[in-house]
Amino acid sequence: MTQVIPEKQLLASLVQHGLLVPTGVDGVLGRGRLFEEVIERFDRLVSAACAEDDAEVVRFPPVIPRRDFERSGFLESFPHLAGSIFTFEGDTKQHHEMMDRIEAGGSYAPFQTMTDVVLAPAACYPVYPLAAGVLPPAGRLFDVASYCFRHEPSTDPARMQIFRMREQVRIGSPAMARSFRDRWIERARELLGALGLPAEPAPANDPFFGRGGKLLAENQRQQELKYELVLPICSAERPTALMSFNYHQRHFGEVFGIRTVEGEVAHTACVGFGLERIALALFKTHGCVPTAWPAEVRRRVGP
Amino acid sequence: MTQVIPEKQLLASLVQHGLLVPTGVDGVLGRGRLFEEVIERFDRLVSAACAEDDAEVVRFPPVIPRRDFERSGFLESFPHLAGSIFTFEGDTKQHHEMMDRIEAGGSYAPFQTMTDVVLAPAACYPVYPLAAGVLPPAGRLFDVASYCFRHEPSTDPARMQIFRMREQVRIGSPAMARSFRDRWIERARELLGALGLPAEPAPANDPFFGRGGKLLAENQRQQELKYELVLPICSAERPTALMSFNYHQRHFGEVFGIRTVEGEVAHTACVGFGLERIALALFKTHGCVPTAWPAEVRRRVGP
Repeated sequence: MTQVIPEKQLLASLVQHGLLVPTGVDGVLGRGRLFEEVIERFDRLVSAACAEDDAEVVRFPPVIPRRDFERSGFLESFPHLAGSIFTFEGDTKQHHEMMDRIEAGGSYAPFQTMTDVVLAPAACYPVYPLAAGVLPPAGRLFDVASYCFRHEPSTDPARMQIFRMREQVRIGSPAMARSFRDRWIERARELLGALGLPAEPAPANDPFFGRGGKLLAENQRQQELKYELVLPICSAERPTALMSFNYHQRHFGEVFGIRTVEGEVAHTACVGFGLERIALALFKTHGCVPTAWPAEVRRRVGP
Repeated sequence: MTQVIPEKQLLASLVQHGLLVPTGVDGVLGRGRLFEEVIERFDRLVSAACAEDDAEVVRFPPVIPRRDFERSGFLESFPHLAGSIFTFEGDTKQHHEMMDRIEAGGSYAPFQTMTDVVLAPAACYPVYPLAAGVLPPAGRLFDVASYCFRHEPSTDPARMQIFRMREQVRIGSPAMARSFRDRWIERARELLGALGLPAEPAPANDPFFGRGGKLLAENQRQQELKYELVLPICSAERPTALMSFNYHQRHFGEVFGIRTVEGEVAHTACVGFGLERIALALFKTHGCVPTAWPAEVRRRVGP
């Protein structure tokens, strides 16, 4: 069984091997060449695994429209994790005041104005407004990826504030969404298993905000709307989710006006790969020196 | 000569061919599979071109520490382009108020608090704090890349708010910084020329803010601190910068305490590839169907 070492020790080891580069802020990390190569190779492995699905491939930037985000429901459920983007829109006089404030060690927040963009909290968010309208009879399947932001500073390298997520998103009837998700749980398990990562599916819930959050989380579990493939990285008691499998029912279809040819509100499901977490699991499981990884693993994702 | 078509026509054509995907906010665009493949291949071409330089390779996320950013001087020169990140840190009651505000179509800005991260304005910014201290005798050379944010919404696809930049950064003596930059101007010209992009070097200046900005821009030009490789994409009169070559003199060395072995303040220079712009220049020059590109170009960067 994999030996579990504490998060700080793991981070120190990764930094020492040049795999991660600290920036001074918890959860904001640069990555060295080998770390990136492992992620690139894994990403290609995913592409190969689903090449025949013929998904619509779109890559989104880390920044998305605020209006869509406000409608999405994220701020209702996870306001504490969201990142909104502000900028300076004042004149020369206000600029001087702002710079004086900064020089004096003060906050320049009062000089910042909200823009019409926010940070993407998950790779699939820009897909739903894109799919608005009537779906083709077979529904739609998207292959997306982007940086995601979650404001939860942590010293755990497996809990970055800014990280990359690759997702498959299915939009169609309830049966299409469900079967897509269930099929991917098996597919992903095989994919990770072949890399020496025996990740296990577990029912899960999102970290909903506030007093009502507990109820929402329980409901999500009861209805089995969320599964994760988990593996111990820093803790055996609290294994890390490498992937998540979400069935949103009619939520996004309703919000963004997506309908099936039959005129029903579309159901959606998404499958997300946490790319940094999967790389971390590989380095944690097989060691920080990829040349020493098992041959089978190297052949698949080794640099 | 390349025919110059207006920016909206170019964007429409790129969207029609599935190369770019609008999100509803100017300058925030998804990219289709072929667009990404061209960028990936170009990125590998750059890696091959400088493989022997033995640079320190680091990839940074789109989000960087606010403290370093405040010290960097960016807010002094370009406050209007910077993006700071805010989040919600209130309680359940405030959360209800925020959601009511959003539902009523109001702004939730008053419920947002500044975090300790901002959006990266250029790929090289996280390098300078990393290099603090005394340099090795030969100085240091970094190969970095990241998403960059500039708050300047535009319908010109060559002026995105969020885009990717690959950079080489040299830190050392004034002679090291200068010769690095001058060598790269020729190198990059060859690299782009071989792709059928006859980009020409031109002295340039940054878009400094405010009344004092004009003076700073003139000074930058007079001292030849900034060059760009430019090519017409949407306008013959105002060609687009595909790359920029910047000599910062002692600015970053002073701010972040980087010194040469001789004890002098280090000088820095950087060379940046605007990846989306280079892809756009390829599609504009050779057409939106890569299978119809000239064989030489296809061989190098075609999908």
